[in-house]
Amino acid sequence: MINKLIEKIRKTNAPIVVGLDPMLGYIPEHIKEKAFREYGETLEGAAEAVWQYNKGIVDAVYDLIPAVKPQIAMYEQFGIPGLQAYKKTIDYCKEKDLVVIGDIKRGDIGSTSAAYAVGHLGKVQVGSRKWAGFDEDFATVNPYLGSDGVKPFIEVCKEENKGLFILVKTSNPSSGEFQDRIIEGRPLYEWVGEKVAQWGEEHMGNGYSYIGAVVGATYPEMGKILRKIMPKTFILVPGYGAQGGKGADLVHFFNEDGLGAIVNSSRGIIAAYKQEAYASYGELNYADASRKAVEDMIADISGALENK
Amino acid sequence: MINKLIEKIRKTNAPIVVGLDPMLGYIPEHIKEKAFREYGETLEGAAEAVWQYNKGIVDAVYDLIPAVKPQIAMYEQFGIPGLQAYKKTIDYCKEKDLVVIGDIKRGDIGSTSAAYAVGHLGKVQVGSRKWAGFDEDFATVNPYLGSDGVKPFIEVCKEENKGLFILVKTSNPSSGEFQDRIIEGRPLYEWVGEKVAQWGEEHMGNGYSYIGAVVGATYPEMGKILRKIMPKTFILVPGYGAQGGKGADLVHFFNEDGLGAIVNSSRGIIAAYKQEAYASYGELNYADASRKAVEDMIADISGALENK
Repeated sequence: MINKLIEKIRKTNAPIVVGLDPMLGYIPEHIKEKAFREYGETLEGAAEAVWQYNKGIVDAVYDLIPAVKPQIAMYEQFGIPGLQAYKKTIDYCKEKDLVVIGDIKRGDIGSTSAAYAVGHLGKVQVGSRKWAGFDEDFATVNPYLGSDGVKPFIEVCKEENKGLFILVKTSNPSSGEFQDRIIEGRPLYEWVGEKVAQWGEEHMGNGYSYIGAVVGATYPEMGKILRKIMPKTFILVPGYGAQGGKGADLVHFFNEDGLGAIVNSSRGIIAAYKQEAYASYGELNYADASRKAVEDMIADISGALENK
Repeated sequence: MINKLIEKIRKTNAPIVVGLDPMLGYIPEHIKEKAFREYGETLEGAAEAVWQYNKGIVDAVYDLIPAVKPQIAMYEQFGIPGLQAYKKTIDYCKEKDLVVIGDIKRGDIGSTSAAYAVGHLGKVQVGSRKWAGFDEDFATVNPYLGSDGVKPFIEVCKEENKGLFILVKTSNPSSGEFQDRIIEGRPLYEWVGEKVAQWGEEHMGNGYSYIGAVVGATYPEMGKILRKIMPKTFILVPGYGAQGGKGADLVHFFNEDGLGAIVNSSRGIIAAYKQEAYASYGELNYADASRKAVEDMIADISGALENK
């Protein structure tokens, strides 16, 4: 799957991923009104609005981008109907041949991580048959529990030709509270990064491992160091746009081959129509605003990479 | 909710929680056969088997225990139908007046943690109405992202009278890989424990905070130290039984008042009928075997506490 991701990045010339993290507040009124008319102001109504909103965005941008990253929390907040919209979104994006990164940040003790891995990336045995629960292509994983919490995910990736992005240095303001603490002269996130590189070495695609890392765009200096510690690790970079990261800050997340990183933007793309720069599209044309925001993001990052 | 948990622990004289972590391999054949006859060897069939199995156990043990802890991964592995069985299990346990600890180990950047918190512990706004997605009483949370990943959970707990158990030192063999690393002379888990105590201080029930901690039964010496670092923190202790923890190892997780900890057993209770000690019950009477295993666990822990 890492090979497919890289091939699609090359084809689109866009090392970016659109974060499908729908909040009801982002969704245009006409979509919500229609959904609520049909299902009421219920979890089902919210889930229908989320799904229609996502579909509009995916239809408008799928030819420009290699991948999407739905954040499962934004669906889970609407309970079972929300998770049905999550699954519907995954399936639709896969129909459009997009690589789907499930931003699930799961991680637990071994047997429990195995259940998550099977549910999200693999197939579960039921009697004599096997079924895929969610079937994302990649999943994000939390490393706090150590190797035996991560390895069951790696096993499933190996069997199913899928991949991971493991949290190393997250984009949020307080990520340093534990991640930056110094252990034998180096911050915890470097130790985690080193471990991710080790886990990845035995699980290689063409040039890059299918065991990737998450490093926030908001910490470009740390990204530069982590790039060196994990030379064959693909880095998922959240925090571009709304969280403050800019193209010029991101060049050191990439290798000399122009690859090695994929930058996520969520709100900046999916709610572009709410920004001054794209306000002229209007609420009704929210998806066109998203397409323009994707084009601008590609230009920003490609430009920065060319001037590297 | 911490007050209710403590009151129920006092009433049952049982500082224990039953982990409802159903694997298909634990479920008696007669339950699976019936479910597969009705729904086929499908995710729906698996979910039905899980639900019937859980219901049998809950009916057999609810009067002996204060709380249950369903591990969401074991349901999530069966996709949407599995999560429907998770929700059904929560609702049924609450009908039986059990405190429900959702073992979800979520944790993300602020806005995302807020969505998880709302979905699992709070209510989400949909137009003019509010709905609860999963509605557990407590949830487990991963601290790797720091304060701004934890605080949205705390906010929802405050509003909704719910609680948390934050991972400090987990029960698995490789938990030490990152959690035991030494920072300024002390292991990371102590720093996390200190932070949990701080977060908890402003969020107190009667005597104990509703912001609790997770510390594995498999590390009793560390539990002893963490007990002192977090005097008003309720500790959820997984790892008893199948993972290797014994009653005598656990006394130092408790305070002098005999409170402060709640010990989880999952496989040791729900699949008791598969152990030699309870084999005489037979598969058909699996729930009676679970009841006996709960009684034995209570005796083991109470005995150890009395001899402390």
